[in-house]
Amino acid sequence: MTVTTPKGFRASGVAAGLKPSGNRDVALVVNDGPDFTAAGVFTGNRVKAAPVLWSQQVLKGGVVRAVVLNSGGANACTGTQGFRDTHATAEHTAAVLRGGPKPQLIGAGDVAVCSTGLIGELLPMGKLLPGVAAAAKALKADGGVAAAEAIMTTDTVAKSAVVQRDGWSVGGMAKGAGMLAPALATMLVVLTTDASAGNEVLDAALRDATRVTFDRIDADGCMSTNDTVLLLASGASDVQPTAEELAAAVTEVCHDLAQQLIADAEGATKHIAIDVKGAASEADAVEVGRTVARNNLVKTALFGNDPNWGRILAAVGTTTARFEPDRVDVAINDVWICKGGAAADDRSKVDLSGRDVTITINLREGEMEATIWTTDLSHAYVHENSAYSS
Amino acid sequence: MTVTTPKGFRASGVAAGLKPSGNRDVALVVNDGPDFTAAGVFTGNRVKAAPVLWSQQVLKGGVVRAVVLNSGGANACTGTQGFRDTHATAEHTAAVLRGGPKPQLIGAGDVAVCSTGLIGELLPMGKLLPGVAAAAKALKADGGVAAAEAIMTTDTVAKSAVVQRDGWSVGGMAKGAGMLAPALATMLVVLTTDASAGNEVLDAALRDATRVTFDRIDADGCMSTNDTVLLLASGASDVQPTAEELAAAVTEVCHDLAQQLIADAEGATKHIAIDVKGAASEADAVEVGRTVARNNLVKTALFGNDPNWGRILAAVGTTTARFEPDRVDVAINDVWICKGGAAADDRSKVDLSGRDVTITINLREGEMEATIWTTDLSHAYVHENSAYSS
Repeated sequence: MTVTTPKGFRASGVAAGLKPSGNRDVALVVNDGPDFTAAGVFTGNRVKAAPVLWSQQVLKGGVVRAVVLNSGGANACTGTQGFRDTHATAEHTAAVLRGGPKPQLIGAGDVAVCSTGLIGELLPMGKLLPGVAAAAKALKADGGVAAAEAIMTTDTVAKSAVVQRDGWSVGGMAKGAGMLAPALATMLVVLTTDASAGNEVLDAALRDATRVTFDRIDADGCMSTNDTVLLLASGASDVQPTAEELAAAVTEVCHDLAQQLIADAEGATKHIAIDVKGAASEADAVEVGRTVARNNLVKTALFGNDPNWGRILAAVGTTTARFEPDRVDVAINDVWICKGGAAADDRSKVDLSGRDVTITINLREGEMEATIWTTDLSHAYVHENSAYSS
Repeated sequence: MTVTTPKGFRASGVAAGLKPSGNRDVALVVNDGPDFTAAGVFTGNRVKAAPVLWSQQVLKGGVVRAVVLNSGGANACTGTQGFRDTHATAEHTAAVLRGGPKPQLIGAGDVAVCSTGLIGELLPMGKLLPGVAAAAKALKADGGVAAAEAIMTTDTVAKSAVVQRDGWSVGGMAKGAGMLAPALATMLVVLTTDASAGNEVLDAALRDATRVTFDRIDADGCMSTNDTVLLLASGASDVQPTAEELAAAVTEVCHDLAQQLIADAEGATKHIAIDVKGAASEADAVEVGRTVARNNLVKTALFGNDPNWGRILAAVGTTTARFEPDRVDVAINDVWICKGGAAADDRSKVDLSGRDVTITINLREGEMEATIWTTDLSHAYVHENSAYSS
C-alpha cells in the first residue's frame, strides 16, 4: 500500500553501504508510463541541498521518469562538487535504466534526486553509484515497501499510505522526523498516481494538499535544506479524475503521511493538535498555531503534563494576528481553563496522561480556523539531537 | 554595588510569604531626589501583564519616585482584577512612603510596579500589601543587595552591577533566566543613577543601551508578558554628564547585567556568543544571530559538544538577510570549519569542552556586525521547564 500501488510504477530499496548500520539506503521509484507528468514542492530554506537545486530544474522540464533517493548523506552545503555528484547520480540512474529490462527513453534531465542525512559532507559516490545500479536491478512492481525503508534516517518505522478511488489510486511514501517548511530532519515524500493528469493539475493538487498537511506539522520549527515532496502520474489507469477529485485524494494521502511523521517525530511523547478558531483570517489562524507549536516553554510544559495556559497566551501575544488579549479563550483537552484572557475552569480537571493532546484557541475575531500538529519537547529530543550529528 | 550605589536612592527586600520557600519576595527602590526623572522599556508581547500596563502609564507622566517589585506571581492574564491589584499595590506603596521617615510628595501615579512568577493567577494581596509596608520600613541606603535578592525566581544568584564615573555613577539590579524581547522567565531590571538628566536624555540612553545588550540576549526565544527595564535618575550627584557619557555608562551596566542573565539562564551548560560579521546591515546581522540563537537543532548540538556547522548554515538559510549560500564562512571557537558554504577546516579541531563558545558567521556582504548571546538546549532546560509551572 505505497508508491507501487498505483499502476505503472516500479520501485526498489537496497543497501549500498552509505549507512553504517548496513540497512537499506538507496531507493528508486520508476514511472513506466504511459504518462510522465509530475509536480514538486521544495524546502523554503535559502540554503538548498544540491539534489533540491537539481530536482527543481528537472521539474521545470515537466517530465519525471524516475526518482532516485538516498539516506546516509544530505549532500547539502557541499559546493560545486556536491552538485556534480547529484548530476552524476542522475546520469548514472538514467544510464542503468536505459540498459534495463524495460528500456526507456530516459535522460538525466528526467531523473529527480533526493538525499537525506548529515549536512556538509560529500556523498561516497563509490558506494552510491553501484547502489543505484543494484536498485535498478531490484525494481519490482511491489517494491514500494523496500523503497520506503531505504529512505529512513532517525525514523523508527517506514511510512506509506494509499487511497483507492474508482479505477485509480494515489500512493505515497515518506521519511522524516521533523517537517516540511520546518524540519532539519529532512522530510522526503514521493507520491504516485495512475490517474491521468497534466502538469498544471498535478501542481495545483500537490500545492493544495501540502498547504494543509505537511505545511501544518511542526516538530521543532527548524527548516531543512533538503525537504522535497514529489508527485508522479503514470496515467496507467486510463482514468482522468477532475482536478478536485485528484486534489482530494492527494490531500488524503498527504494527511495520512503527515500524521505518521508527527507520530514518529524525534523524541516526542505527545501528539499535539493546536486548533485555532475564531480567527479573522486563515493566515492568522496558521500564524497563531505555528507560533504556539514552536514555543519551547509550551512544549516543555506539555512534556511535563502541565496545562500551563499562561505560556500559550504569552505565545499568542508574540504574533501579528488580530486578537484582543482579554477576549481569547483557551482549552486543553476540552477543558476551558482560560476565558477572556484570564483563568476559568480548574486546571486540575485537564487530563494530560495520554499521548494525544488538543489545544483549542478561540481568538473570537472571526470565522476562520486552522489546525497545526506538533510534538512536545522532551529529554529524548535533546538526547537524540545532541548525541548524534544529523 | 547595586541600585543603591548612586546617591539619592534607598532600597529594601523582604519576605512577605509569596514564595513557598520563605525567601525574600517583595522589593522596593525609592528615589529621594532631588530629581525624579525616569525612562522605561517594556516587553513587546501583546499580552502584557497588569504591572506592565500600569508602569507604562506611570512612565508617561515622566516622574517615578518609587518602584515596587514582587516575585512569586506575575499578575499576567489576570483580567480586570489583576489590574485593580496592581493599582492597589501602587496606592499602598505611595501611602506607606508618605507616612515614612522621609515624607515624600508621592502618589500612586509616581510608583512603577513590576511582578514576576506564574502567569494566570491573582496575587495574594493579603500577603503582598503587608509586605510592601514591611519593605518601606526596611528601606536603607545600602538595601540594594536585599532588593536584588527579593526579585529572584529561578535565578541561582542575585545580579547587580555598577559603573563609577567622575562624581556620578549608574547602578543596576536584574533578575531573569530568559531575556527581554524573548523571555518567559521574566526579565526585570531597575537601573539608578545620581546623574542629573532630563527624561528625553534618559530615554535615549536606555533605548541605546537595551538595543545592544538585553535585546541581544536570547535564552529560549520566548517573549515574556512582564519584561521591564527601568532607569531612575536622582540628580543627587549634581553632575550633568553629556547624553553620550550617560548612554555609555548605562550601556556598560546593562551589558554587565545581560551577561549575568545569560550566565545564569535556566539549565544552560554553554555561554554562547554568535558574532555575525560582513552583514549588509546591522538589522541583517541581528536577524541572522537571533535566528541561529533560537534554533533548537543548533542548541542541542552545542549541548552535545558537536560542531555541527551544517545546522548553523541551515538556520541562516531561513532568514531574509542578504547573503549567498556559497559565500558564507562559519567558525566555531576560531576554527573555520565552513568556507564558501562548504566544509573547510577539520571539525575535530574544534574544542567545545569549555563553557564559552563563540560562533562566527561571516556573510561577506558588507561591513556591519552584531553579537547575540545565547545558551544551549540541555536536559536541565527541559527538566526545569517541564517539572515546574512558571
